[in-house]
Amino acid sequence: MAQDQGKLSFIMFSGTADKFIPLGVVSQAASAMGMQVNVFVTGFALRGFTKQAQALPFPAEFASMAPAVAQGMERAHVASWDKMLRDAKELGAKIYACSMMSSVMGLKKQDFNDLVDDVVGAATFLEQAEGGQTLFI
Amino acid sequence: MAQDQGKLSFIMFSGTADKFIPLGVVSQAASAMGMQVNVFVTGFALRGFTKQAQALPFPAEFASMAPAVAQGMERAHVASWDKMLRDAKELGAKIYACSMMSSVMGLKKQDFNDLVDDVVGAATFLEQAEGGQTLFI
Amino acid sequence: MAQDQGKLSFIMFSGTADKFIPLGVVSQAASAMGMQVNVFVTGFALRGFTKQAQALPFPAEFASMAPAVAQGMERAHVASWDKMLRDAKELGAKIYACSMMSSVMGLKKQDFNDLVDDVVGAATFLEQAEGGQTLFI
Repeated sequence: MAQDQGKLSFIMFSGTADKFIPLGVVSQAASAMGMQVNVFVTGFALRGFTKQAQALPFPAEFASMAPAVAQGMERAHVASWDKMLRDAKELGAKIYACSMMSSVMGLKKQDFNDLVDDVVGAATFLEQAEGGQTLFI
Repeated sequence: MAQDQGKLSFIMFSGTADKFIPLGVVSQAASAMGMQVNVFVTGFALRGFTKQAQALPFPAEFASMAPAVAQGMERAHVASWDKMLRDAKELGAKIYACSMMSSVMGLKKQDFNDLVDDVVGAATFLEQAEGGQTLFI
Repeated sequence: MAQDQGKLSFIMFSGTADKFIPLGVVSQAASAMGMQVNVFVTGFALRGFTKQAQALPFPAEFASMAPAVAQGMERAHVASWDKMLRDAKELGAKIYACSMMSSVMGLKKQDFNDLVDDVVGAATFLEQAEGGQTLFI
């Protein structure tokens, strides 16, 4: 696999609960395929990575579907998004929190859980993402 | 056109009505330019591709603008998103439904309309998308 | 830096206030790194680029956090998104308004402020974006 085809990066910005599912699924699938996966967590999505658990809201337009989706996830035996991210990390994926938005939201490195490898700036992330594909979620 | 520059893939996740417009416009434009277009439909966006039509909600923040946008689309003679996707398909675009989220939402292959070419997993899609650009909508 | 690694494009579609922050931060950081940055503004995001200022709504799910985010931005001395975009433009970034959606929303070239370099179609933008990475925001 050529280096410039084997890298997938994510800018994880959205903080609604639904968006964490594709983050988990795609990062796990890409890691299992041997791709180098980097996740840059910023904006409201930072709330999904703190030690003190914070409720992630369902998107306003689909709030009435939340119970059906939760039941469907269980029925289809889909792992939780953080379990999928942990699997991706065991295969080499790296997760970084955005230093600027952490500061804006009053979050320090010790406030994040063990999913987060480091707190870095946007320039550092862009360097790592260079030459691959990047998804903005 | 080099192969690694001529491929555009979409992970179509969002299920609000507005996001289907850029899916249609960009997939049609890219197909017309000779790019290889792949669309991976997942999450709430699957509701836009079922035989039994489901109402796609407008984003909560812009609900009051829905009539103006609809009138503007008509006035500017913009085709509907599914018409644009059909044009893209005639030019070679492929549309796949995500097997995992289909299962979560209780949708089977026969529940999808003829826009959907197949139901596949995330890994299959990532292989197809490799070496090009991918947009997460 | 190889040409195909040095280009970052944005399709800026979302019109909620929060999404303009990553547009500003990432376009500024990429421009400062010497990357060629192109922004294609479409959909509700066009409302952020008009001469007559229009209020950009906060996402419905996080509306209660708007004051805390505004205070955090000030406390962390984060520049406004349009200041960051102006910095990016001074480093060479280009910003284009989507001709089709401008027409749908009744906006003409003279309605946009000086951040916008030109009004172009999706095909023109895709040509410019080719060979780099593109983020859909």
